[in-house]
Amino acid sequence: MTYTINPIGTVQKKDSKIYLEINQDLWAATTHLDLFSHAIVLWWIDGKDTPDIRKTILSKPPKNKSPIPSGVFSCRSPARPNPIGHTIVRIISLDEKNKRIEIDHMDANDETPLIDIKPYLPSSDRIDNAEVAPWFENLEKRYSE
Amino acid sequence: MTYTINPIGTVQKKDSKIYLEINQDLWAATTHLDLFSHAIVLWWIDGKDTPDIRKTILSKPPKNKSPIPSGVFSCRSPARPNPIGHTIVRIISLDEKNKRIEIDHMDANDETPLIDIKPYLPSSDRIDNAEVAPWFENLEKRYSE
Repeated sequence: MTYTINPIGTVQKKDSKIYLEINQDLWAATTHLDLFSHAIVLWWIDGKDTPDIRKTILSKPPKNKSPIPSGVFSCRSPARPNPIGHTIVRIISLDEKNKRIEIDHMDANDETPLIDIKPYLPSSDRIDNAEVAPWFENLEKRYSE
Repeated sequence: MTYTINPIGTVQKKDSKIYLEINQDLWAATTHLDLFSHAIVLWWIDGKDTPDIRKTILSKPPKNKSPIPSGVFSCRSPARPNPIGHTIVRIISLDEKNKRIEIDHMDANDETPLIDIKPYLPSSDRIDNAEVAPWFENLEKRYSE
C-alpha cells in the first residue's frame, strides 16, 4: 500500500523575502490563517526523493556534532523513508493578490514543493520540558525564551 | 507531479496501551530515540483519503466551537488536500523485541498507517508566545505549563 501526495504550492525566495506560494485553487484554505502567529509547514524534500536515499536508516546530523550515528527517526536528517520536511515558521502576512504567505525563515530551497500547512497550537504543540539527546542540547533557540 | 508515501508502521492500541509499531526493516531507524522525551508523529489519515474529501477547502472544527468556517490550512481538520496527521507524543519506552514504541496518547485509530517520526526539538519546535484564533484559545494544555 502506498499513498499519494499532491503539492499545494511551493517555497519562493525572492529579494531576501520568503513566501509560501499557494496553488490558486487552494488559496481559500488559508482563510483565518492571519489570526495565528506561527504555522507548521510540511514540505517535500524533493532533492532526497530517490530509492537509495529513502533507504537510509542511520545518519549523523552534521550540524549537531553528534558523536555517533542516530536512526533517521531520532534526528531531523533529510534522508528518511518519506522525505517530509517539518518547519515551524512565523507568519508575517497573507498576500491574497499573489496567493502567498510571507514567513520569517525556511530551511528548504526555493521552489521546494509544499504539502501541508497547519496552525501552531500551543495546547498540543508546545512542550515546556522536553528532553533531547545530548548532541541536540544547547542549540540556539528560535522562538522560546 | 505527485509524490509517493510508503508507510513505516502502524498505530497499535492494545490493552489500554498505545504503540507505534515500526516495520521490522526500519526498526534500526529508532536508534537513540530513547534519549528524547517527546516525538512528532506524522500519520496518514486513511479514512479521509478520498478525492472528494481531499477537495475540502473550508472546515468548522467541531471540537473548537469555531463560529465561522476556517480554511483547512488554518485548522487541524482531518479533511485536507494531503491527509497527513501531526501529533506530538510522549515516548514511554522502546520495545525492541516487538519493534514498537509505547507512547502516551494518539488521536488516530488503531491500525492507522505511520509515515514519519521525528524527535521533538525545543530549539525549533517550542514557541512560547504563539497567538491563535480566538476559538483555539483556552484549549486544555497537554504538556505546557
